Amino acid sequence: MRESELLQHIYTTTSGPTPLVPIPPGDDMTMLLVGDQAVLAAVDQVIDGCHVDLPRTPLELVGRKAVTRSLSDVAAMAGHPVALLATAALPPDFGHDRATTLFDAMRATADQYGCPLVGGDIAIHSDPSAPLVCTVTVLARPGPAGAICRTGARPGDHVFVTGTLGGSLEPDGLGRHLSFEPRVREALILAGLLENRLHAMIDISDGLARDAAHLATGSGVRIDLDTTRIPCKDGLDWRRAVGDGEDYELCFTAVGDVPASLDGLAVTEIGRVIEADQPDGPRLVLLAGDSVIDTTTLGWEHRS
Amino acid sequence: MRESELLQHIYTTTSGPTPLVPIPPGDDMTMLLVGDQAVLAAVDQVIDGCHVDLPRTPLELVGRKAVTRSLSDVAAMAGHPVALLATAALPPDFGHDRATTLFDAMRATADQYGCPLVGGDIAIHSDPSAPLVCTVTVLARPGPAGAICRTGARPGDHVFVTGTLGGSLEPDGLGRHLSFEPRVREALILAGLLENRLHAMIDISDGLARDAAHLATGSGVRIDLDTTRIPCKDGLDWRRAVGDGEDYELCFTAVGDVPASLDGLAVTEIGRVIEADQPDGPRLVLLAGDSVIDTTTLGWEHRS
Repeated sequence: MRESELLQHIYTTTSGPTPLVPIPPGDDMTMLLVGDQAVLAAVDQVIDGCHVDLPRTPLELVGRKAVTRSLSDVAAMAGHPVALLATAALPPDFGHDRATTLFDAMRATADQYGCPLVGGDIAIHSDPSAPLVCTVTVLARPGPAGAICRTGARPGDHVFVTGTLGGSLEPDGLGRHLSFEPRVREALILAGLLENRLHAMIDISDGLARDAAHLATGSGVRIDLDTTRIPCKDGLDWRRAVGDGEDYELCFTAVGDVPASLDGLAVTEIGRVIEADQPDGPRLVLLAGDSVIDTTTLGWEHRS
Repeated sequence: MRESELLQHIYTTTSGPTPLVPIPPGDDMTMLLVGDQAVLAAVDQVIDGCHVDLPRTPLELVGRKAVTRSLSDVAAMAGHPVALLATAALPPDFGHDRATTLFDAMRATADQYGCPLVGGDIAIHSDPSAPLVCTVTVLARPGPAGAICRTGARPGDHVFVTGTLGGSLEPDGLGRHLSFEPRVREALILAGLLENRLHAMIDISDGLARDAAHLATGSGVRIDLDTTRIPCKDGLDWRRAVGDGEDYELCFTAVGDVPASLDGLAVTEIGRVIEADQPDGPRLVLLAGDSVIDTTTLGWEHRS
């Protein structure tokens, strides 16, 4: 049982774009109309034993990650964060003080990004050994260039990533995946600078290989990445940079001039978008010296 | 550790109404502004061992309840449901077919109430014994009379309930709490008929005594209920009707004429709103023959 297959089942049995749901499930966020207002919405889970590891992971970072993962979805759509709702299912022995620490961390992180925590729910498991399960629902509105989807990449686009990739879990599962900065501000700057030249975007949660493949598949194109150009963290091999995941950087496709940095954050051109050879042909091709690797499998399925 | 105390902590450390959050956390739904549009939002959890009991509870009814609980919050605000997002944290041995059954039930129930499932997340626990945790986030827009809050009850109002109360868990925990109809349509009819004479409303999830006390406390008033008038299910004693909970009927306060039924659903006058004697005086008083019972304790804390 793989969660991506289950989600795929849910998405494919949901109808495509409709007037009231112009961006259906399957992108980083769904867009729906409330009255005449376009609203972006998404929900994510953080589960002990899957995404964090209590008690080794400090609770402050659990709360932070629950919020920043959701804000990274807003960044991927180049949206303005509006508000969050959070839930926690707590183990019976969790205790009032730790619950308060968790929610205070969520609220503080939410406030830091101008996206207040405006609701939620708390429940206590009956099973003494049941793990902590948090969810965060994020609401946003499209930026001035509209929502940027996974489906807009066009042959002729160049492919870019922000920052450097790989090794997010290190050291000891307590690395950058807990403390990353969601690229909300940078995405809005980018969308403002490029306007309608910014064609498609995704945040890198499953690994560059898998997420770039999502872009290619969603857009019905093929993406070729030059492995020598991929910006690797701390001298890591490109294989780690494309496969590790949980970087929460942005991968996007655009035409024309793209700045080399966004408010100090490096932007690197790593490949290009070409016509798909055939419907079931390769979607993501890695150019590694003399090797040409057709792969959508180097990325990792979230362990949960 | 009680979940109501934890939620209270979260609410009291959240600021009151603001221009962008005109109805802050603490009501059945939060109201926030997205652009110029008022959006109502709430999230609820359904947890195995707390709200349902697998495998005794059929999965179809688990999915149904996850959705109808959220829709009952929309009814309590007299809102129009817009869309839902759902999550599930699944036990590792849950299996693809059962996950599909669960989400199909959520989608079918959502569609039945014109509130499509537009997003979600699925994760799989690493702990083999971890229980199913579902959440549903519901988005709505205010009805024509605006959102009806817990805070609007005024001295001179009369107090009403829809339907009949008590015994929702029977038989064997598999009763009406799994199959109730959220009163979305009836609430909109009521708000349309009464317009600004409908002052306050709540759905009965914790039990009439506790939920009427929420209305009274939220509104800074006292509510007196006549126990002889409380509509009890199947000849149950009034103590069961005020204490059992999970009825998901509506309790509201209004002035002037109120219809005796809404599209076939009985509406019963059960009490009145009076001035609070003092800030820490009784909020909910039950008039039972010669007895006058000051109580906010007959209701039950959700077991989770």
